[in-house]
Amino acid sequence: MNEMNHTGGFTLPGEAGYEELTLKLAKMWGADVIRDSDGTRLSPEIMNAGYEIYATLCIIRDHNEWAGRHLETLQQVFLISNPITAQGNTVVIPLMERYFGDQFTVNASVEALAYWQVYDRTTGTLVSSDRWAYYPDSQSVRVRGVEPWHRYTVSFMAFRVWEEINMYNHTTNHWTSEHLMQLDPRHPSVQKYLLDWLENWLKGHAAVDVVRFTSLFYNFAFIWGCDSRNRYLFSDWASYDNTVSPLALKQFEEKKGYALTAEDFVNKGNFQVTHWPPTNAKRDYMAFVHAFVVDFGKKLVNLVRRYGKKAYVFYDDSWVGMEPYGPHFEEIGFDGLIKCVFSGYEARLCAQVPVTTHELRLHPYLFPVGLSGAPTFAPGGNPTADAKKYWLQVRRALLRAPIERIGLGGYLHLTEGFSDFQRYIAELAQEFRTIRSLHESGEPYTLPMHVAVLHTWGKLRSWSLSGHFHETDKHDLIHINEALSGLPVKVSFLSFEDVKNGALEDVQVVINAGAAGSAWSGGEAWADPVAVAVLTKWVYEGGAFIGVNEPSACSGTDTFLRMAHVLGVDLDMGEKVCHGRWKFDVQPDESIMMDSSGLKLKENLYLTDGKARVLAQEKGVPTFTVNCFGKGKGIYFTSFQTNPKNNHWLLKLMLFAGGYAPEQSYLSDNPYVECAYYPASNTLAAVSVSGEPQMANITTTNGNVQIHLEPHGFITKTL
Amino acid sequence: MNEMNHTGGFTLPGEAGYEELTLKLAKMWGADVIRDSDGTRLSPEIMNAGYEIYATLCIIRDHNEWAGRHLETLQQVFLISNPITAQGNTVVIPLMERYFGDQFTVNASVEALAYWQVYDRTTGTLVSSDRWAYYPDSQSVRVRGVEPWHRYTVSFMAFRVWEEINMYNHTTNHWTSEHLMQLDPRHPSVQKYLLDWLENWLKGHAAVDVVRFTSLFYNFAFIWGCDSRNRYLFSDWASYDNTVSPLALKQFEEKKGYALTAEDFVNKGNFQVTHWPPTNAKRDYMAFVHAFVVDFGKKLVNLVRRYGKKAYVFYDDSWVGMEPYGPHFEEIGFDGLIKCVFSGYEARLCAQVPVTTHELRLHPYLFPVGLSGAPTFAPGGNPTADAKKYWLQVRRALLRAPIERIGLGGYLHLTEGFSDFQRYIAELAQEFRTIRSLHESGEPYTLPMHVAVLHTWGKLRSWSLSGHFHETDKHDLIHINEALSGLPVKVSFLSFEDVKNGALEDVQVVINAGAAGSAWSGGEAWADPVAVAVLTKWVYEGGAFIGVNEPSACSGTDTFLRMAHVLGVDLDMGEKVCHGRWKFDVQPDESIMMDSSGLKLKENLYLTDGKARVLAQEKGVPTFTVNCFGKGKGIYFTSFQTNPKNNHWLLKLMLFAGGYAPEQSYLSDNPYVECAYYPASNTLAAVSVSGEPQMANITTTNGNVQIHLEPHGFITKTL
Repeated sequence: MNEMNHTGGFTLPGEAGYEELTLKLAKMWGADVIRDSDGTRLSPEIMNAGYEIYATLCIIRDHNEWAGRHLETLQQVFLISNPITAQGNTVVIPLMERYFGDQFTVNASVEALAYWQVYDRTTGTLVSSDRWAYYPDSQSVRVRGVEPWHRYTVSFMAFRVWEEINMYNHTTNHWTSEHLMQLDPRHPSVQKYLLDWLENWLKGHAAVDVVRFTSLFYNFAFIWGCDSRNRYLFSDWASYDNTVSPLALKQFEEKKGYALTAEDFVNKGNFQVTHWPPTNAKRDYMAFVHAFVVDFGKKLVNLVRRYGKKAYVFYDDSWVGMEPYGPHFEEIGFDGLIKCVFSGYEARLCAQVPVTTHELRLHPYLFPVGLSGAPTFAPGGNPTADAKKYWLQVRRALLRAPIERIGLGGYLHLTEGFSDFQRYIAELAQEFRTIRSLHESGEPYTLPMHVAVLHTWGKLRSWSLSGHFHETDKHDLIHINEALSGLPVKVSFLSFEDVKNGALEDVQVVINAGAAGSAWSGGEAWADPVAVAVLTKWVYEGGAFIGVNEPSACSGTDTFLRMAHVLGVDLDMGEKVCHGRWKFDVQPDESIMMDSSGLKLKENLYLTDGKARVLAQEKGVPTFTVNCFGKGKGIYFTSFQTNPKNNHWLLKLMLFAGGYAPEQSYLSDNPYVECAYYPASNTLAAVSVSGEPQMANITTTNGNVQIHLEPHGFITKTL
Repeated sequence: MNEMNHTGGFTLPGEAGYEELTLKLAKMWGADVIRDSDGTRLSPEIMNAGYEIYATLCIIRDHNEWAGRHLETLQQVFLISNPITAQGNTVVIPLMERYFGDQFTVNASVEALAYWQVYDRTTGTLVSSDRWAYYPDSQSVRVRGVEPWHRYTVSFMAFRVWEEINMYNHTTNHWTSEHLMQLDPRHPSVQKYLLDWLENWLKGHAAVDVVRFTSLFYNFAFIWGCDSRNRYLFSDWASYDNTVSPLALKQFEEKKGYALTAEDFVNKGNFQVTHWPPTNAKRDYMAFVHAFVVDFGKKLVNLVRRYGKKAYVFYDDSWVGMEPYGPHFEEIGFDGLIKCVFSGYEARLCAQVPVTTHELRLHPYLFPVGLSGAPTFAPGGNPTADAKKYWLQVRRALLRAPIERIGLGGYLHLTEGFSDFQRYIAELAQEFRTIRSLHESGEPYTLPMHVAVLHTWGKLRSWSLSGHFHETDKHDLIHINEALSGLPVKVSFLSFEDVKNGALEDVQVVINAGAAGSAWSGGEAWADPVAVAVLTKWVYEGGAFIGVNEPSACSGTDTFLRMAHVLGVDLDMGEKVCHGRWKFDVQPDESIMMDSSGLKLKENLYLTDGKARVLAQEKGVPTFTVNCFGKGKGIYFTSFQTNPKNNHWLLKLMLFAGGYAPEQSYLSDNPYVECAYYPASNTLAAVSVSGEPQMANITTTNGNVQIHLEPHGFITKTL
C-alpha cells in the first residue's frame, strides 16, 4: 500500500466573512475543493486560495423577479378537494379547505380547467363537466344533479407558488426572506430564459471549476396542509406529481397518443406513491418526464462544458426525472454525482452511477437544527455524535464500493464552538482517504454469491426506496438494503420483467420483502404465472427464495402468497379461519438465528403443509421458517431490522440459503466487526460499529487473523 | 308473584341400571321430563314413574346394517387434493394424501367423476377432462399436457364413511364400538327406508311422549386429516359441504336451471366458510337444501304426530338446512327446539324460534371429559364450576327472553361422586323456574332503543356466527352478540337488503363488526352505493353507526372503510403510507369508557379529517373514536371482548350514541350486577356475575333501590 496522502477527496463548504476559519479547516480536513452552500457565498480570498471551486446552482429557483412577471410558468400540481357528502341534489365543494395557502394557488385557466374532474367517490364515477362550474370568489365548485348522500370530490390544478425546500427551511429555521418560486422549464420561454441566465452566470464566474446543480427541475411531492396538526399532507421523495402542467399533459398526449387525466395523478386521493406499483400510464408518464429532463438537462450541461467547467449534480430534492439508474441518465453528461448520505445504501447507490466522480455529502449539514428540528450546531446538539453515527453507517458500505470524494455543506462558522467536531471530521476524512486508496489498487474480495432484490421497480430504484432511511424505515426492504450495503456479496435489483428475461441465471439468492400490494412485495406483478413459474423452477433447481413480511402477496388464487408452495407458509386473509393449523416444534439453529424477539408477530401466518421447519415463533405462530423445495429453499421471516447482529445474521442465512459452507474466508466472526480484503494490495481492512473495544477472528487463505479494534475503530493490515 | 313451584321445566337424562339415582335426582332437580341420551337407555321402571319421556333419535345414523348394503347412499363431500407442482409436462396427483382414511373413501363412480375437476392453481384455470384420468390403485390422477412449474389440484367426491359425531366421541373418549355411518335422505330409497323405520320405531315406543330428533340430516363440515399434527383440517359449524352428492347436484340443476361444479364447494381449497360472504351460487344451493330438509323433515314430523307424540329438535350438530331463522323452518312443524348452550346469545337464539317449547340443554354434558378433552366428571374435573360458569353466562340472557325448559344430557351415574354438582343443579333449576315465572306474568321492561347488528347473513344467522362461542371467539361480533344478549334493548339482525328495504326506520343504533372481507363486516356488500347512501342519510338524520375492527371494509374507492366519512377514521392498506397523520389529543370520557388496555392496536388506522374525537389510543394510533356526522354519530373501536365491564360499557356507549340520557330507569350502576324489571308483576330481578358480594343502585320510577347480592347471587324484589 502507498504512503497515505493526507489531502484530497474532501469538499469543504467555505463561507465569506470566515476566510480564516475556511482555510484553517480546509487544511485540517485535507480539503482540495471549496464550495458554497444554500445561504453562503465564497469571497475572492477563498476563491483564490488554490482550491478547486464548486458553485451551487438551484437552476429553477432564485428567479423571483422574472417568475413574478411570468406566473403562468410556475410549477404546478394536481390537488384533490376534501370529499363532500351531498345532502340534496346540489353540492358545493370548497377546493382549498385543507391546503396550505402559502404553497398553492388554484389554476383555473381555460387550459387547466379542461383537466379538472369531479368524481362521485361513492360510486367511483366521473361527473360530466356540464354538471359543474367553478366559482373563483369562494374557490369552490358547485355540482348539480348529484345523488343525495354520495360523496363528491374535485380534482383541480394548482400552481405551487413557494419552492418546497425554501418553504421547509423558512418554516423550520424561521427565515424571513422572500418566498422563492420555482419555474417549470417545460415552457420554451423558461428554457430560453434559463439558458440565457446560465450563460450569463457562467460568463461571470470564471473562477468556478465545477457547477454543482443542486439537482435539476422538479422537487419530490411535498404537499402541505393548512392545519398545524397535519402539516405534511403528502410527502413522497420519488413521486412525479410536481412535474405536471397543462402543457406537459398536451405534449404527453401528442407523444404517447393518449391523454392523461387528473385521476391518473390524484388516484382517489392516494396519489401515485412510489411504494405502490405504478400504473401503465404512470410508467409512460415517467418515461415522458425522464426524456424531457434528460433533454433539457443535457443542454445545461453542454453549456457548462462550453465554458470549460465540469457539471456535477446533487442527487436530492429536485431529482424527479433524473434517477441515476434511469435508462437515459448517462446522456445528460454529468461529470459527477453528489449524494447526501445518512446510510450505507446511499453510498452504494452513489458508487454505481455512471459518472466519473462520486461524492458523498455527509451529515450533519452545518445548520443549527437537523431534519427533525432537533438541535445540531446549537445548544443541546452533539454534532460529533451525529457525524459518527452516520459515518459508521456509511463506512461499512465504503469498504465494498469505491467513492472518490466526501464533503460537507452548510454554514462553516457554526462549527466554531465545536472543536471536537472539527477534530472528528479530520479523522473521518483520513479514514475515507485510506479506504479510497484500497479501492484504487483493486476491488475487494467478494463471496461467489449473487443476491438479487426483486421488486416492481428493479434497477431504476436500486438500493433506495423513496428517500432517506428515516423516511422509509417502516418498510422491511430499506433495512435489508442497508444490511446488504456492507456485506461481501454481489447485489442486483431486479424487476419481474428481468426475472422473466433470464436474469436469475447467475443469481443464488432472491429476496422479496414488503407489505402486500406494495411495489416492494410486487403487488399485481405476482399475478403473472410466468414470473411465478420461472422462480419456482429456479428454486427447485437450487435457488434460495427469501421472503419477508408479505412476499409475493397477491389475492386471486388458492394461496395469498404466490410463492407459498416454495416457502411452506402462507397468510390467511380471513378465508381460512375455519382451517386447522399445523402444530409444530420450534427447531432453532444458532448458526442462522436472528434475535427472534425482533421478529414481529404475524397472526395470520400459517404452515401450508406442515413440512417447513420452524426456527422461531411468537404466541404460537411461526415467525421464521425454512422450507426445502427441490434442491433449493424457501425461507420466510416476518420482519427485518438492520443492526449489527441482524446484518451479520442475514449474511449467515444467505450462505445457508445458497448452500455455501458457513465458514468462508474474509468474514469476521463478530457481528460488530466487519471487514474487506483487497487482494491487489493483500490488505485486510476492518471496522467496528461498537462503542466498546472488540476482537474478531477472520479466516484468510493463510490461516486465522485476530483483529483488535478500538471503539468504532478502523484498521488495515497487510497479510 | 305466585308462590314458587319447585317442579317443572326440567329435563333429566335418565339411565337404565341407575333407576334409584334417576328418580332421586328427578325429585331433587324438580324434573318433569326424563330423556335418554346418546349411549344411554331408559328402563321400564323409569318410563313408568310418571314423568314425560323424551326419546332421542339420530335419524340418519344407527342404520349400519342397511347402510352396509347400500353404500352408495352414504353422505358425501367434495375434497381437494394437495396442490402438486409439475416438474414436466405430466403430473401425478395423489388424492388422499392429507385426509383421514377412516373418514373418507373416494367416490369414483361415473356420476361422481363427472363432477371431479382438475385445476391449474397457478393460473386459476380448469384443465379439460380429456387431459386427465383417475388411477384407482394408487388413488391418484395423472394429468397430461400441463405447464411445467405450475401447481395442480384435483377436486373429487368422497363418501363420508364415519358419522362425524360418532367419530369425534370415539376418538375423544376412546370408544371401541362399531363406526356408525350416515345415510343421505336425498335418495328416495333412504327416505322410504327411514319413514318405514321411524313408523316401526313409533309403533314400538308407545310410552314415549316426545321424539327428540337430535337434529336432522346433515352435519356441519368436519374434515379430518391423517396427520395428528393437524387433525381438524376444516371445521365450520354452519357450512353446507356435507349435503352434496351427484344426485343433489343433478336435482339442483333441474330446479335452478344451472349446474354447480366442484369449485363452487372447494373454492380454491378455502371451502365456503360461513364467516365469508356467500356467492350467489351458494345462496341458491342453501335455499335448495333448505327446501329439501324442510320437505322431508315435515314428513318425519307428521309421522310422529300421527302416533300422538310431539316432535322436538335438538339444534346442534346436524343442523344444516334447518336453521331456525330460515324462511321455511316453521313449515317443518316442530313442537319444540332444544338448544345446547354455553352462552347467553345461544339462549336468545333459542327464545325467538317459532316453536311452542324452547328448551336449553345446559353444560357440562354428563361425560367424563369436556369438549377440549379436559376432565369433567373425572378426577381433576370440577363440574360444579363448569356448570356455574355457563349458567352465569346464560342467566343474564334469560332475564331478557322467555325460555320454557332447561335440562341436561349424558350419563347420569357420572354425577354420583359429585354431590356438590347435584346440589348446585337443584339451586340452578330453582333460579330458572323463578325467572320463567317472571316472564309468564309479562315481558320485562326494555329501553326504547332498537339495536341492529348489520351483516351479510342478517336474520338467518341471528345471534350466532357459526357454532359456539369458543369456536368463534376470534371474531369481535360474537363478543358483541354475547354482550347484547343480556342488555335491556331490542336487538335485530339485519342484512344489507333489509337496510336497503327500509329496516332502519325504527332503529337507533347499527353495529357492524368484523374483519375486512368477512360476512360480519360485509365484504363486497359494501360496494353497493345504495346501502352506503341509506346508512349515510340515516346517520346524518340522527342514527348511530358503531363500527368495530374493520367495519364496512371494501377496497375500490377512496377509503377502505366505506363508512369512513361517518366514522372519521379509515384504514390504510399501504396506499397512504406517504400521507401525513393527524396529531390528536386523547380526550377520554369516563362515562362511556371501556378499559382501553383491552383495545387492540390497529397500526394502519388513521383519522380522515382530524375531526373525530379520540377517546383512547395505543402506541400513538387511535383505538376508540367518536365522530359527529349531521345529527348522528359514527363510533369506532378496534376490538371488543365480552366481560362484565365491557358489556356494561357497551350499553352506556349505545345510550350515548343514540342520544339518550345516561341515567335510565332499571339499570344497575355496577357492571357485575345486571337487572330486569317486569312491570306486570312489579318485580325487579337482579343477578351477579361476581364471585364477591356486590351492591348495586338501581333507579326505578319510584326512586333508587339498593340491591345486595351474594357471590353469583340472584334475587327478586317486588317494588
